[in-house]
Amino acid sequence: MKILIVNGPNLNLLGTREPQIYGNVSFENYFAELKSKVACELSYFQSNVEGEIINELQRASCDGIILNAGGYTHTSVAIRDCISSILIPVVEVHISNIAGRESFRHDSLLSPVCAGCIVGFGLKGYELAIRFFTEK
Amino acid sequence: MKILIVNGPNLNLLGTREPQIYGNVSFENYFAELKSKVACELSYFQSNVEGEIINELQRASCDGIILNAGGYTHTSVAIRDCISSILIPVVEVHISNIAGRESFRHDSLLSPVCAGCIVGFGLKGYELAIRFFTEK
Amino acid sequence: MKILIVNGPNLNLLGTREPQIYGNVSFENYFAELKSKVACELSYFQSNVEGEIINELQRASCDGIILNAGGYTHTSVAIRDCISSILIPVVEVHISNIAGRESFRHDSLLSPVCAGCIVGFGLKGYELAIRFFTEK
Amino acid sequence: MKILIVNGPNLNLLGTREPQIYGNVSFENYFAELKSKVACELSYFQSNVEGEIINELQRASCDGIILNAGGYTHTSVAIRDCISSILIPVVEVHISNIAGRESFRHDSLLSPVCAGCIVGFGLKGYELAIRFFTEK
Amino acid sequence: MKILIVNGPNLNLLGTREPQIYGNVSFENYFAELKSKVACELSYFQSNVEGEIINELQRASCDGIILNAGGYTHTSVAIRDCISSILIPVVEVHISNIAGRESFRHDSLLSPVCAGCIVGFGLKGYELAIRFFTEK
Amino acid sequence: MKILIVNGPNLNLLGTREPQIYGNVSFENYFAELKSKVACELSYFQSNVEGEIINELQRASCDGIILNAGGYTHTSVAIRDCISSILIPVVEVHISNIAGRESFRHDSLLSPVCAGCIVGFGLKGYELAIRFFTEK
Amino acid sequence: MKILIVNGPNLNLLGTREPQIYGNVSFENYFAELKSKVACELSYFQSNVEGEIINELQRASCDGIILNAGGYTHTSVAIRDCISSILIPVVEVHISNIAGRESFRHDSLLSPVCAGCIVGFGLKGYELAIRFFTEK
Amino acid sequence: MKILIVNGPNLNLLGTREPQIYGNVSFENYFAELKSKVACELSYFQSNVEGEIINELQRASCDGIILNAGGYTHTSVAIRDCISSILIPVVEVHISNIAGRESFRHDSLLSPVCAGCIVGFGLKGYELAIRFFTEK
Amino acid sequence: MKILIVNGPNLNLLGTREPQIYGNVSFENYFAELKSKVACELSYFQSNVEGEIINELQRASCDGIILNAGGYTHTSVAIRDCISSILIPVVEVHISNIAGRESFRHDSLLSPVCAGCIVGFGLKGYELAIRFFTEK
Amino acid sequence: MKILIVNGPNLNLLGTREPQIYGNVSFENYFAELKSKVACELSYFQSNVEGEIINELQRASCDGIILNAGGYTHTSVAIRDCISSILIPVVEVHISNIAGRESFRHDSLLSPVCAGCIVGFGLKGYELAIRFFTEK
Amino acid sequence: MKILIVNGPNLNLLGTREPQIYGNVSFENYFAELKSKVACELSYFQSNVEGEIINELQRASCDGIILNAGGYTHTSVAIRDCISSILIPVVEVHISNIAGRESFRHDSLLSPVCAGCIVGFGLKGYELAIRFFTEK
Amino acid sequence: MKILIVNGPNLNLLGTREPQIYGNVSFENYFAELKSKVACELSYFQSNVEGEIINELQRASCDGIILNAGGYTHTSVAIRDCISSILIPVVEVHISNIAGRESFRHDSLLSPVCAGCIVGFGLKGYELAIRFFTEK
Repeated sequence: MKILIVNGPNLNLLGTREPQIYGNVSFENYFAELKSKVACELSYFQSNVEGEIINELQRASCDGIILNAGGYTHTSVAIRDCISSILIPVVEVHISNIAGRESFRHDSLLSPVCAGCIVGFGLKGYELAIRFFTEK
Repeated sequence: MKILIVNGPNLNLLGTREPQIYGNVSFENYFAELKSKVACELSYFQSNVEGEIINELQRASCDGIILNAGGYTHTSVAIRDCISSILIPVVEVHISNIAGRESFRHDSLLSPVCAGCIVGFGLKGYELAIRFFTEK
Repeated sequence: MKILIVNGPNLNLLGTREPQIYGNVSFENYFAELKSKVACELSYFQSNVEGEIINELQRASCDGIILNAGGYTHTSVAIRDCISSILIPVVEVHISNIAGRESFRHDSLLSPVCAGCIVGFGLKGYELAIRFFTEK
Repeated sequence: MKILIVNGPNLNLLGTREPQIYGNVSFENYFAELKSKVACELSYFQSNVEGEIINELQRASCDGIILNAGGYTHTSVAIRDCISSILIPVVEVHISNIAGRESFRHDSLLSPVCAGCIVGFGLKGYELAIRFFTEK
Repeated sequence: MKILIVNGPNLNLLGTREPQIYGNVSFENYFAELKSKVACELSYFQSNVEGEIINELQRASCDGIILNAGGYTHTSVAIRDCISSILIPVVEVHISNIAGRESFRHDSLLSPVCAGCIVGFGLKGYELAIRFFTEK
Repeated sequence: MKILIVNGPNLNLLGTREPQIYGNVSFENYFAELKSKVACELSYFQSNVEGEIINELQRASCDGIILNAGGYTHTSVAIRDCISSILIPVVEVHISNIAGRESFRHDSLLSPVCAGCIVGFGLKGYELAIRFFTEK
Repeated sequence: MKILIVNGPNLNLLGTREPQIYGNVSFENYFAELKSKVACELSYFQSNVEGEIINELQRASCDGIILNAGGYTHTSVAIRDCISSILIPVVEVHISNIAGRESFRHDSLLSPVCAGCIVGFGLKGYELAIRFFTEK
Repeated sequence: MKILIVNGPNLNLLGTREPQIYGNVSFENYFAELKSKVACELSYFQSNVEGEIINELQRASCDGIILNAGGYTHTSVAIRDCISSILIPVVEVHISNIAGRESFRHDSLLSPVCAGCIVGFGLKGYELAIRFFTEK
Repeated sequence: MKILIVNGPNLNLLGTREPQIYGNVSFENYFAELKSKVACELSYFQSNVEGEIINELQRASCDGIILNAGGYTHTSVAIRDCISSILIPVVEVHISNIAGRESFRHDSLLSPVCAGCIVGFGLKGYELAIRFFTEK
Repeated sequence: MKILIVNGPNLNLLGTREPQIYGNVSFENYFAELKSKVACELSYFQSNVEGEIINELQRASCDGIILNAGGYTHTSVAIRDCISSILIPVVEVHISNIAGRESFRHDSLLSPVCAGCIVGFGLKGYELAIRFFTEK
Repeated sequence: MKILIVNGPNLNLLGTREPQIYGNVSFENYFAELKSKVACELSYFQSNVEGEIINELQRASCDGIILNAGGYTHTSVAIRDCISSILIPVVEVHISNIAGRESFRHDSLLSPVCAGCIVGFGLKGYELAIRFFTEK
Repeated sequence: MKILIVNGPNLNLLGTREPQIYGNVSFENYFAELKSKVACELSYFQSNVEGEIINELQRASCDGIILNAGGYTHTSVAIRDCISSILIPVVEVHISNIAGRESFRHDSLLSPVCAGCIVGFGLKGYELAIRFFTEK
């Protein structure tokens, strides 16, 4: 089983960005650790560019996608349309509890077209999402 | 480690209720299976009465609570206040992808005061929530 | 044919409560008269507790339910979900013309999942609802 | 006792119009059957023109009016004002359950000034409305 | 100088319609009295049909129009477009103080394209509107 | 008969202020001309201070008040309360057609408690308002 | 192939009405030119009366309808229902770019039930709509 | 004089619940102290169940009720209807300044039907409410 | 202990202004009576001018302020800022139950920065507010 | 005459993406066919990146642009500003009838600054748009 | 070159008022320092009274006005009208970053009619505004 | 001191784009002039791609950033998150007075996380922003 993790804008700064919200572990370090814990084949993509995230989702060839679209979560009809257009199931992950932050973060344009959503568990959320794919 | 699962209104009908949305496994059967799979001590409570859910949350003595408040998710300031009042962390679970259903199901009054939220993974969501408690 | 009438909060005060809106006949007296007029088997349940109304709807065994959910009409996603979950058709009745009262009474969360709705005919509405079941 | 039934726009198409919503009986056939079932004197008027409906309501001479204003239900302050201006009580009827359809069908400008409202019972609703007049 | 008064739906009922709001003088009686008081040539048109009001406004040949569009005031983009399309100035008149009534009467679609508006002075408003034309 | 005209903020600039909207006649000049045309006793007050307008309305001793509250029209609950508190009838006048300007000018907090309103007739509106008092 | 063009209120004034928005060609002249350019059989109907437009749509017998409902576009649930009720496909045309005008012109109640919509191309839009029917 | 104090959900946790908002005195201790300070006869009821609060209000036999409905304040049409239905005057009390907290706490469904409201004075608010009854 | 009572616009009319809402006792009479009942030193200020109320609050030298800002309650960011700027605690009082009146009276801009709020107890509210200061 | 067609995000998937909405012809195939049918010189650009669409629009050198901005239609102020900044007229095309889909697709930020809009005609819409340029 | 600085309500408290937001320098001290730094002639006016700010703006005789209207920024149509009425350009200054504070501070009624706006730079903003006048 | 200026979409067209709004000086020319006037080290970046602006902000190494995000100002949560994530202070500049333009330009998602904002001063705004960094 192959799973692709796609992170959106500013998630390349994890570990240094607002650590009181996002923690102080970089995604690279976490990803290495994660690979050693799970039984599936993991790949990783990050971009700050909305359209490159769409490009990546379109060319993906895997069994499941885990997407943390960052700030594009709340504004991107284009990424939503892309998720609807491809056949691979997508699980949405957010590190922080977005429901408890600014009101413009409460609605996700992506959720209605994702298979499911995991919010607020920190980096642990990525691992739980993988389990959804590998264990079901 | 002790974990309490609390289900709200109509979740006692799981397996017969709108099976195209909620599946056709009863929670009792799922719960028996779940207990055999996880390492922690599990207990279970269900009520259709908002105030009895509050009573249960108040008297809970455990390490974590998994709450699917059903229809009260979107209307109960009282359950929200209860979650804020107790010291045990609460994880919110929804079986169906509520973001893709009627608009009055899009906002959860409970999310901002929960530790995190798992949505749309069917009954699997309860197991993932347990992992959040037992593995972190 | 068996029909269950379910009344929600404060409808046990009919006859004394705001008589300029709700009239001065108690539901008990009206119910006795109603039983003598209709050909079907009637039973009656009233509760001020939202969850007990759900309990009653879930355990109902009849051909049709007439529900006046009182104040829960406008706030209860849980009762709405219950109506969707059971297989018995439900007809909504309101004694007063709620469209002509305060704006928070204009929308019913229950109407979209009921078979139909009768509003503003006083206690006569219950009888018309019975006819819907018995005559069609 | 004399009762007038007034149908608004597109109700002359009943039986052929969107039969999955409105059924496949024409109003003319139903009306003939209805006349034979009730004890009162019935007359019938249909128009697609908002102002002609107002004209008819103004010149009506009867004991009660049953009005299904169709699409004008949601937009016509003029018909509402007409109902307020005449002394004959008006009962509003809708064949389909408008609360469960598009959001612009949820509010009726007419309901607050009608005696009552019957929604979602198909053509049976007209008969129940007649009973409201003839039996009370 | 020639002035046309156009009254919309239900204003043919003046004198009998809701006299606590609109008074108990018929417009015909008032119009006769008005003609004797003013120096200009007056004509009068009333219809309950939105499109006939548009027809009349289009074929008008006069120096000024006084329009009380009744319930169409709040809903008719078509009458608004008509006022914009003709070259004769239109003054809007309302007998009652619509600002103090139901909220759906607070906004007039017509006001922005009329020369001015006179509200709340009873039938006197028509006379004041004539003065606007004849005295300026 | 004694009538008081009260003008609010910036109306002391009439004649120089935005002449494309308000014309180029000062209110002082217009007032002199107005006094010579009407049969009643006229007095005049202008202030830019909301509370001084309230003071003047409270101490007024006359048969009618004509109020152009300028920018306070849309924001002053205090002036509204004052109009409700005094027994002298108040007529609202606006020089320009506020319905056709910015949206924040569309609603008047004062209209619901005034006897009537005259909008868009330029300075002529004051004279029409006087006629409402002197001729009725 | 037979195509019916239906124009709504005030479109009989084309050529003289607000020429800076709608141009200065009358529809009659344009229609004559149009007939000579297209291969199908064209007929034409115009009315200022909402209900007569509904009557015409109901009795139409053709392969396609081109509808410019003018001001009724934004307010008529009744015309919308009519379009849903008939089996002939309807294409919506607007001469001006309504998206760039007043906000109450931005939403069309008719668009969701039409086959498609052509906006802002002047009279050319009618010809493009015909091509949609004749060329596909 | 007999006065009943009714506390809603989670107020049984006073003293331990969010002490930075609600203080650290339990209601039982406060109630004992309060009884010694006032001249009237005091009784006390608390429930987390909305319907049981309604039951208690319906069966109350006293001269005044002091109600802190907690989270139900903002969501319960049913409790509002109950207050309207009984004849005993009800005073609403809130310990914290709800106007300065989350926006969903700003509106009380109960205030319009209560005699008055005391907000933000901590437990002292109950005593002030008693004085309203005993001293007036 | 020194306490200042500040009343806003139109409260100088108490006793004659809308007595069905505000009663028929003037504040001067009530103030004299109040001084005799309480143990603290009371002073009083009233103004119809928003900025003078701010001036008075800024120069106040006392232990507590009781403010009934009248119509400015709902519109004055400036008074709100003033309350935030000074160090003396302010209690908000309203004579009538503003929650049960027009919707624009439901929100107070001042409440979030006041110590607490007393609404609907008539003039008695001022006395209860004093007790809050003197007894705590 | 030279015309540029610009397609936005996910339109490179045409033919495989949600064929029930968008059909099963790829744009490349359609484009080849289109070139053979029209008399003008056609070029084509597609990108999933919002800013690259802006880059292309800025460097375009042609007589007309046909733009289907896909999901950016509803969110991109930047593309709107670009259309306003360039001198070449832009026609907006949508393949599906966006007015009949999710509510966030109902408003186009681009329409007000485009020359016109063609919606719902499938791929045929591109050809009609070309005709607008080549035939006028 | 002459420049007038106008400060609105509570800005006379600068230095003592909420120093965590507004700093602890009084405007008088800052103004003395500012005069020594700039080449133009500076004058200063402060008032807590909305109408006195209007009076000052009307009588100003200078080349530019710098206005910090404090709380009136968000509520005063009257000051906005005044800025539109005078011919001297006005620059709006806010000491704190109002966009990051309460939502009612996000919109300025004044900005649309000012020449420009400087927000969030503390007292430095006044100096930058002067430079706009003196250096351009 | 090093300062980076970042311009967003379409600002590369300055001088030719809508010159009535943005003037007719290109940013390149202005930038050359600006460098000669200020004492700090200036660098410049422009992109039409949202994600490239984020990339640039992330890799910036300077003492202050001046950002004119153009159309992304109103839609980009991703740029906002980026500003929050980096440690260099950002000042927002807009050339035109966006408060006086279309309503969708009134709110900036970026302002709450910027140090301050300068709006409406044309290109001069960039220079004033530099002074904020260099002079404080």
